[in-house]
Amino acid sequence: MIVTVTMNAALDRTLTVPNFQRGQRHRASQGLTLAGGKGINIARALKRLDVPVVATGLAGGRTGTRIVEELTSEAILNDFVRIADESRTSTAVVDETASSYTEINEWGPHVELGELEMLREKLHYLSRGAELVVFAGTLPRGVDESFYAEAIRELGRRGVQTVLDSEGEPLRLGTEAEPYLVSPNQREAEGLVGQEFHDDDDFAMALDAIADLGAPNVLLTQEEGCFALVREERRRVRFHAVAPRVEPVSVVGSGDVLLASFLASRLAGKPPDEALRSAVAAGAAATLEVGAGRFDPREAGRLTGGVEIVELEVVRS
Amino acid sequence: MIVTVTMNAALDRTLTVPNFQRGQRHRASQGLTLAGGKGINIARALKRLDVPVVATGLAGGRTGTRIVEELTSEAILNDFVRIADESRTSTAVVDETASSYTEINEWGPHVELGELEMLREKLHYLSRGAELVVFAGTLPRGVDESFYAEAIRELGRRGVQTVLDSEGEPLRLGTEAEPYLVSPNQREAEGLVGQEFHDDDDFAMALDAIADLGAPNVLLTQEEGCFALVREERRRVRFHAVAPRVEPVSVVGSGDVLLASFLASRLAGKPPDEALRSAVAAGAAATLEVGAGRFDPREAGRLTGGVEIVELEVVRS
Repeated sequence: MIVTVTMNAALDRTLTVPNFQRGQRHRASQGLTLAGGKGINIARALKRLDVPVVATGLAGGRTGTRIVEELTSEAILNDFVRIADESRTSTAVVDETASSYTEINEWGPHVELGELEMLREKLHYLSRGAELVVFAGTLPRGVDESFYAEAIRELGRRGVQTVLDSEGEPLRLGTEAEPYLVSPNQREAEGLVGQEFHDDDDFAMALDAIADLGAPNVLLTQEEGCFALVREERRRVRFHAVAPRVEPVSVVGSGDVLLASFLASRLAGKPPDEALRSAVAAGAAATLEVGAGRFDPREAGRLTGGVEIVELEVVRS
Repeated sequence: MIVTVTMNAALDRTLTVPNFQRGQRHRASQGLTLAGGKGINIARALKRLDVPVVATGLAGGRTGTRIVEELTSEAILNDFVRIADESRTSTAVVDETASSYTEINEWGPHVELGELEMLREKLHYLSRGAELVVFAGTLPRGVDESFYAEAIRELGRRGVQTVLDSEGEPLRLGTEAEPYLVSPNQREAEGLVGQEFHDDDDFAMALDAIADLGAPNVLLTQEEGCFALVREERRRVRFHAVAPRVEPVSVVGSGDVLLASFLASRLAGKPPDEALRSAVAAGAAATLEVGAGRFDPREAGRLTGGVEIVELEVVRS
């Protein structure tokens, strides 16, 4: 079983609006309300891949109640700590006529110390049955930037493997705590390494720099695929995987699906290049659907053959 | 007591977003979630004016649950029929830096015949204690366009006065059913009369045309005030009321506040011109706040002195 942890869960509303324009009154042709936040998106993708998963984290106020109801109606196992302050709502407007995607996010809730302690206890309990605990997304206000790092160390001491997908200082501290895998996107990875990436050498260097920080496996996700570093028998293998071209409807959450698929394949014992191929195809399939974490596994299967994978040369020892 | 009926209740989300632009990712500086729909907005304004009010109508699905919860948390007495299909969510983006207001509405739920019958029974019961029943807003799908007309006639037979604020065919049929007052905005009134209005004569003509259809009292609301026709002792008196200039933040729902204030004054026995003056000032005060139906009565009081009222000449006998 995989446990995903979403510290800043959201109610994700995606509105499809033809010819969306500022200052106008519109009628949405479609409205989709889903529980969201990176950890929840990953849980949704894992469930679609038939991997047993439990989503936990913090959910607050009436919006938190709705988040939990939505998860339950999707039959995604969930066990959230309910907090007092209101969880955020994220609103996205998809205009297919103009291929535009407009996003409005709110700040997350403020978390009290006692609420955080309840989450730590819940994690301790849930991780007993877990092969992997995935921490994903930003931290809400009132949570120390070392939260992920401490949780990763605590789970590590008890032999539970962890995955981290976050940004900024929580990502840096968490990476140093030596999780099994970190999965930043390009912007997050640039922040972590401290420079911009322009060519393949930069990305290969970044993979090693991040691995040196403490994470033996690194997925550096992009819209069109990913760079990956995998440690196999004390050796580091680096890949660049590029997805076949598709017409994206909504790219949001496609990195979450990529990560979920990669984890599912690796847990099933597939070799890294094969896992990467499925993962990148799943990420591409996710861009064809509105709603983060949603994708059609058959579409992913069709796209798998078109994924190009090259093994990267070692750029430094 | 006043009963307001909202057939197409909504969850109104207003997001304040500086420099809002299509295709960008934004962080909302403020997010406000309120129960909405014209009848609910009117109930909110009546409550702020200390007038006893009960909000009823149809509320569906999880969004309906949230609508009722929001009403209850505002201490607005409510008694909605819960329906199976999902109530709509309305999203508005206010950008104060650019003075832009962007609105995205969803279609309403589909209503089943049995659900409508439950509402009719509830109305029958609630109207026993009511001085006035206000029908406001659009009809959701599956509700016949003659719904308001039939309800108005039924209440009229039992001596209960009614107010109607809607549009299109439901407004036309409802007006013919002879409610105490109809309150269309300019666009709705133009649809009802069948022509566009350009000068004061056009508006005065429209007031009489609408009164001739069957409504003895007419409020024709505009952003900057209203035209009104009031029947007093078998005589028709017509007014044009113009609000003092303010810098509007959000004009949505300001007509609902205007109507609520007018009704509150009339029920309190105030003469029509005085009622109109307070109503237009309250409508102007409502444009200074985000959230439909919300306004500061003290601000309205300050604006009252600046309202200009002229009695209009009779343009035809």
